[in-house]
Amino acid sequence: MKKAVILLSGGLDSATCLAYAKSQQFDCYALIFDYGQKHSVELESAKAIADYFGARYKIFKLDNQQFAGSALTDKKITIPDFNPTSMNIPPTYVPARNTIFLSIALAWAEIIGSMDIFIGVSSIDYSGYPDCRPEYIQAFQQLANLATKQGVEQSSMTIHTPLIQLSKAETIQLGIRLGTPYKMTISCYRANDLGQSCGKCDSCNYRIKGFHEAGIADPIDYVG
Amino acid sequence: MKKAVILLSGGLDSATCLAYAKSQQFDCYALIFDYGQKHSVELESAKAIADYFGARYKIFKLDNQQFAGSALTDKKITIPDFNPTSMNIPPTYVPARNTIFLSIALAWAEIIGSMDIFIGVSSIDYSGYPDCRPEYIQAFQQLANLATKQGVEQSSMTIHTPLIQLSKAETIQLGIRLGTPYKMTISCYRANDLGQSCGKCDSCNYRIKGFHEAGIADPIDYVG
Repeated sequence: MKKAVILLSGGLDSATCLAYAKSQQFDCYALIFDYGQKHSVELESAKAIADYFGARYKIFKLDNQQFAGSALTDKKITIPDFNPTSMNIPPTYVPARNTIFLSIALAWAEIIGSMDIFIGVSSIDYSGYPDCRPEYIQAFQQLANLATKQGVEQSSMTIHTPLIQLSKAETIQLGIRLGTPYKMTISCYRANDLGQSCGKCDSCNYRIKGFHEAGIADPIDYVG
Repeated sequence: MKKAVILLSGGLDSATCLAYAKSQQFDCYALIFDYGQKHSVELESAKAIADYFGARYKIFKLDNQQFAGSALTDKKITIPDFNPTSMNIPPTYVPARNTIFLSIALAWAEIIGSMDIFIGVSSIDYSGYPDCRPEYIQAFQQLANLATKQGVEQSSMTIHTPLIQLSKAETIQLGIRLGTPYKMTISCYRANDLGQSCGKCDSCNYRIKGFHEAGIADPIDYVG
């Protein structure tokens, strides 16, 4: 079996991505980041989902002082409700987050001898983060092959993005077919404070819309 | 003054790079990594060099378990002497190191509002690490502009590599003109164990050769 590194957050997309990598017969190594996110309860979900799929996992702790200036990590900045009229990148954007995560995934891939990294980004139902777009992923793949000893010697590292052209509803339909345990996932940016999902932040908004459009009941609880 | 993030290791090249950025009138933010390197005494050099140039600095600690498998971080792997006949990337290669370092520099740059990152890589007198080559740096710059909010909005982030086409001797000549305090730098991979420089590892080899070719006395001490 070929090894793959899968970025796993505990949310809906990355859980589906892990299910997809498993379905493609990869030996899965889940990489989970503790980066000072306010919704750190997602880490427990991530571990449970990795166990559910029989994947090895590593929790990589990053100095969260690095990530000041985002509503997801900075106590001084409030997580906003979803704003359907805004065209701006929202304050939940974390500077260079996916680049840092993919870089560390690249190191782990090289150490374990894997040429395959999976990341559950989507450029359809998403918050406009620049590091979720296809052109960004293509640039990272090009970099990965120039950056590493194994890239230079074998030159075929692949960044897999099975969800990048899927709507949230299509992701959920794919995930259901693949047996993704959505009840174990947490999407809400406010989950730590509330103990359940708020139903109003960007992340909840896309999730609720996705289950609704897919015609599937969301198995998690929301406030109220 | 424009702000710049400078990767600073405590070695000869990055000290010269900081001197160069200062000479270009940048307000310098030095980024120092504690990644479990065996020659961690270089961290003290890096701090002293940042202070010497009046640069702000941040020490970013990275979980060194991530960096298993390199002679620079793994106690089970011996640091080799320089091998002039080898065409291979040496065991001191650290998987994806510059990609991780540059990614974190990118985050810091975005947080402080800087569009300029300096890294003291050279592709002339170097150990053959893939992430020191011009094509790698170009790929990272392209990525940086796709990855970040400020890259998308302003699209002009620059990865500066003032030493990339310089021999070690030329770097030293440049650094002397710019007032780089080479006595404060540490290059040796074995500096922690020996308390001074071994004169035999890859890094010492290139340094000694560089000072010799530049016709300048190296101000640091070597064993024996």
